[in-house]
Amino acid sequence: MRLAVPLVRALATSASGSAAAASLKVGDALRSDRRRFTEDDVAAYADVSGDRNPVHLDDAVARGAGGFARGRVVHGMLAASLFPALIASHFPGAVYASQSLRFAAPVHVGDGAVAEVKALNIKASGGRHIVKFSTKCFTSGGDEDNDEKETLVIDGEAMAFLPTLHLTSEGIAQ
Amino acid sequence: MRLAVPLVRALATSASGSAAAASLKVGDALRSDRRRFTEDDVAAYADVSGDRNPVHLDDAVARGAGGFARGRVVHGMLAASLFPALIASHFPGAVYASQSLRFAAPVHVGDGAVAEVKALNIKASGGRHIVKFSTKCFTSGGDEDNDEKETLVIDGEAMAFLPTLHLTSEGIAQ
Repeated sequence: MRLAVPLVRALATSASGSAAAASLKVGDALRSDRRRFTEDDVAAYADVSGDRNPVHLDDAVARGAGGFARGRVVHGMLAASLFPALIASHFPGAVYASQSLRFAAPVHVGDGAVAEVKALNIKASGGRHIVKFSTKCFTSGGDEDNDEKETLVIDGEAMAFLPTLHLTSEGIAQ
Repeated sequence: MRLAVPLVRALATSASGSAAAASLKVGDALRSDRRRFTEDDVAAYADVSGDRNPVHLDDAVARGAGGFARGRVVHGMLAASLFPALIASHFPGAVYASQSLRFAAPVHVGDGAVAEVKALNIKASGGRHIVKFSTKCFTSGGDEDNDEKETLVIDGEAMAFLPTLHLTSEGIAQ
């Protein structure tokens, strides 16, 4: 299974020194690689979570009761897992304190999903830092005429304790 | 992989007619079976989510940077998946609109986790019902002297569109 190595768009431009010295500041945004969830991913997530809601597994139910014209949808909580995965890839040892999620639009198998988190607030807290992030997930790929068109599918905020504000070198790869 | 068949505590006492006629009302609570997350579950979730934060995989990091005296913790978003799994087991075809999560305490491998959702508000919405639930997850098993002592580990609320308020027969077992 692939672990996305995230890009750091805002940091790539705001980091003034060497990459290894980059440190998270309010306003910095981190963005994940694009991930296309597969049918196998949905099946694996259904297994480990026990969430066998037919809107994720049965096109007829997804179209009918679910109201999703394009059929089966990826579990929202699987798409939302991109946020802590993204934060932890930059800040190993991060500990989640909270997450709010508004599921604005469905994610379908094969859609390209990208997570973006932005630091809204940073406070020192007992040797660690507590950081408030906006958390947004966008998809593209559902519009055959325009694969680059992005749709906001999840919106929310997260609070996480970070052991350090320094970004790991992997996080700054481009 | 086992799909928990939830108990319905409040409904078991409030349902006045046959089980098949039970319908969700404000104040009704649904409770999942106890689930003990295994190391294999954590590994499978790390694979499908891409979240390889060492606080979930490495006892030394969990104790050090993570501050968890008992070592590795289950991904919070995996424990939180119990909420949509519980709701969908009672209401197949449910569609999640939102979820807030406050991670109050860690869940460790082997802890028994139970999800409880309670209907706070119910509104008709275009042929479906939009229901606001409180969502709480409790663990037990961490206290060797008292396996029955429960700790609130996740607190929050969810909004979900339900195709019907009638509970599936599986949901009314007990």
